[in-house]
Amino acid sequence: MLPTAVSEYLLSHREQSLGSLFELLRIPSIANLDDGACPRAAEWLADYLHGLGVSARVCPTDGRPNVLGELHVDDRAPTLLVYGHYDVQPPEPLELWESPPFEPEVRDGWIYARGADDDKGQLFTHLMAIEAWQRAGGGAPVNLKLFIEGEEETGSPTLESFVADHAEELAADAAVISDSSFHSADCPSITYALRGLAGVELTVGGPDRDIHSGLFGGAVANPVNGLAKMIAALHDERGRVTIPGFYDDVRELTDDERRAWAKLDYDAAAVMTDLGVGDLGGGERDLPPLERLWARPTLDCNGIAGGYTGPGSKTIIPAAASTKISMRLVADQRPEKVLDGLRQFIAEHTPPGLTCEIKTMAGARPVLLAPDSAAMRAARAAVSEAFGRETTLVRCGASVPVTELMQRLLGLDAVLMGFGLSEDRLHSPNERFALDQFYRGAEAAAIFMQKLAEKSA
Amino acid sequence: MLPTAVSEYLLSHREQSLGSLFELLRIPSIANLDDGACPRAAEWLADYLHGLGVSARVCPTDGRPNVLGELHVDDRAPTLLVYGHYDVQPPEPLELWESPPFEPEVRDGWIYARGADDDKGQLFTHLMAIEAWQRAGGGAPVNLKLFIEGEEETGSPTLESFVADHAEELAADAAVISDSSFHSADCPSITYALRGLAGVELTVGGPDRDIHSGLFGGAVANPVNGLAKMIAALHDERGRVTIPGFYDDVRELTDDERRAWAKLDYDAAAVMTDLGVGDLGGGERDLPPLERLWARPTLDCNGIAGGYTGPGSKTIIPAAASTKISMRLVADQRPEKVLDGLRQFIAEHTPPGLTCEIKTMAGARPVLLAPDSAAMRAARAAVSEAFGRETTLVRCGASVPVTELMQRLLGLDAVLMGFGLSEDRLHSPNERFALDQFYRGAEAAAIFMQKLAEKSA
Repeated sequence: MLPTAVSEYLLSHREQSLGSLFELLRIPSIANLDDGACPRAAEWLADYLHGLGVSARVCPTDGRPNVLGELHVDDRAPTLLVYGHYDVQPPEPLELWESPPFEPEVRDGWIYARGADDDKGQLFTHLMAIEAWQRAGGGAPVNLKLFIEGEEETGSPTLESFVADHAEELAADAAVISDSSFHSADCPSITYALRGLAGVELTVGGPDRDIHSGLFGGAVANPVNGLAKMIAALHDERGRVTIPGFYDDVRELTDDERRAWAKLDYDAAAVMTDLGVGDLGGGERDLPPLERLWARPTLDCNGIAGGYTGPGSKTIIPAAASTKISMRLVADQRPEKVLDGLRQFIAEHTPPGLTCEIKTMAGARPVLLAPDSAAMRAARAAVSEAFGRETTLVRCGASVPVTELMQRLLGLDAVLMGFGLSEDRLHSPNERFALDQFYRGAEAAAIFMQKLAEKSA
Repeated sequence: MLPTAVSEYLLSHREQSLGSLFELLRIPSIANLDDGACPRAAEWLADYLHGLGVSARVCPTDGRPNVLGELHVDDRAPTLLVYGHYDVQPPEPLELWESPPFEPEVRDGWIYARGADDDKGQLFTHLMAIEAWQRAGGGAPVNLKLFIEGEEETGSPTLESFVADHAEELAADAAVISDSSFHSADCPSITYALRGLAGVELTVGGPDRDIHSGLFGGAVANPVNGLAKMIAALHDERGRVTIPGFYDDVRELTDDERRAWAKLDYDAAAVMTDLGVGDLGGGERDLPPLERLWARPTLDCNGIAGGYTGPGSKTIIPAAASTKISMRLVADQRPEKVLDGLRQFIAEHTPPGLTCEIKTMAGARPVLLAPDSAAMRAARAAVSEAFGRETTLVRCGASVPVTELMQRLLGLDAVLMGFGLSEDRLHSPNERFALDQFYRGAEAAAIFMQKLAEKSA
């Protein structure tokens, strides 16, 4: 149980915390843009941490800066590393937002803004917990380190070297990351596995300029048709990815996992209604949805462009076409090996008369965490207490690159204590975060600190 | 033989005619844009025709206006209808132009500008011929009608009703269209067949917004991947189009045509060098290139768009993807029937979980003209005389929608007396027209009028 003063502080400062979060949400820190907004968000966070008694600094990288913070309370207390990211996905298409993406507002119990959930809102739960302990609980019960990244949404291109270079400063006894979701609003959950990521930008070249489709059609290979053929060949009729060796290192589910997952509701009808689709048959359609989403690798085109796309018609064979392809990976796949397979596939499938150019994007290894560590048990207890229900272990299909780096470079199995809901529209227009998840999340974060301290006492 | 005064007028007014053409080329009459440039070009042409003694007027349509002109010289003389179009293809990509597309200039014997060949330059050969006859030859030897279209490059969406509505005004004994090319610079040619055109814009819809590829990848069908699969399925492994019934109405080559085409040089190496491609295996690769380009139907994607295509990565399953598809048709295919087949194909190939929307673009029927009409013989003689070589009969893979409408609605088999060269970069950056073709083309046009008058005398 949290000390009453801490609980009451959290309760009585809800409006104020929401106001602070809104300040952060108003900074359009879009990861892709080098327009100064990311550095401003980083500075805002460093200032805010100072206000909580945390010594903090903005650390430049080759891309967007990261924020590091430290609050040392007691040599005998364990040290908890809290990770979050302040960068957000681009808000486009803007016309689909009901309120502007960087003008946060509350409607019907939801906070609406780009980053409301992912990850400014979730990060804020920990800042609220720290504040409550500091102001009303006699100080935080654990030593704290904060690591707030600025490039998560661009695949964390400089993160590996940053973590390696700051390994000592980041050293801790436990780590917590709130950048994932509950299985559903009435099924509080802790995540023990994340998918990894590998991606390329593939450009197919044909004639050295756009040419007349009447004068040359039938003789000159078309880059759009050629690219389409290559993309189509990347899946077979059953939805399996055809890249050589793609499934070689995929770890099968354990019997325990199969049993546990069979008991989990997956409300396919609700998901279909929410997304406006009539079918969930993407991917390997012979497998159950949860297995496909959590434990199987995938390949998706995130975008495609080529030739004339303006109004009316322009009857050309375009000079080039390109696509961005991202693959979600599962344990024990390695991005490098999968990319080698993709390169081989592309070399073998480039149609005659066309050329291919491949640009590798930032990737991440998948993670599979031990579900029964001390920190994990503390987190499950904290979430159960704050949300008043048993906490379930789940996996997540998304990627949080830092998790694997903490494991590999810092020897830390982070706890993935996310408070999002599947209806939060991450990366989509009208991203949102439920107020109830936000406030209870802060409570869970505060309890987690207490339980960590108790376990090590 | 042309009267000496007419020949000399053409020779001594070359610079002046080029200057007038440049005025027209400077008007950026891009067919796709409703920015007032097309009406300006139409007005310029009507004024210019007035200057030649032709009564002319600008005729509004639902899209870009057309120009009609008439010059009556003698009730006993035959009437020649001259067709051209003043609208041009969009100039993009602009960065590939060596000189701005609407600032014409001459370099190394070529006129460079959008529309230099297609079709302002070619149209101008007839205006020069009219001028020479009017100013130096005692008046044109035939009655003349001019029809200058403003929507050729957008597939002539309002042309059919325009021609039907103005059938009486357009009635003539012969028609000539200069919007095609020589087989090569040393092989003067008259074109006796054109491919038709049918096109759609196909939009594939998935989730009602861009969604997170980690949270939903493996369950929700991806519109880009789905569209790619559909495009890929439109051709088989031998490059044949798989639309049901697509080849049903394709007329086979005659033995005469096969014999004649076997004697024609097709310099594949030069075409590949010019276009910067290593292969001419697009289309039905089992057939010779000339047959594929002139006598076989094709299907090309002119452009494709969907999802995130900005800098860096955005790991989404996009809400939608779309492509513009155009098909070149040959006798005796019909656009409506081919489009019915495509609609059936799309309905049968739409992947589960995705939707398809089809927008039909303007089309044109293919044409196959009698090669031995009186007008055709006059044209062959005129071109042979002006260029000093025997004229060959060829087909052309492009479409000039008015040709088929003249045949069907006016009962006129137009003569396709084009002066372009295959290296003119039609629809591409750095479009050009050889000065020699321009000046000799005007001479051929003048001789053609004379020969038409003689034949009917």
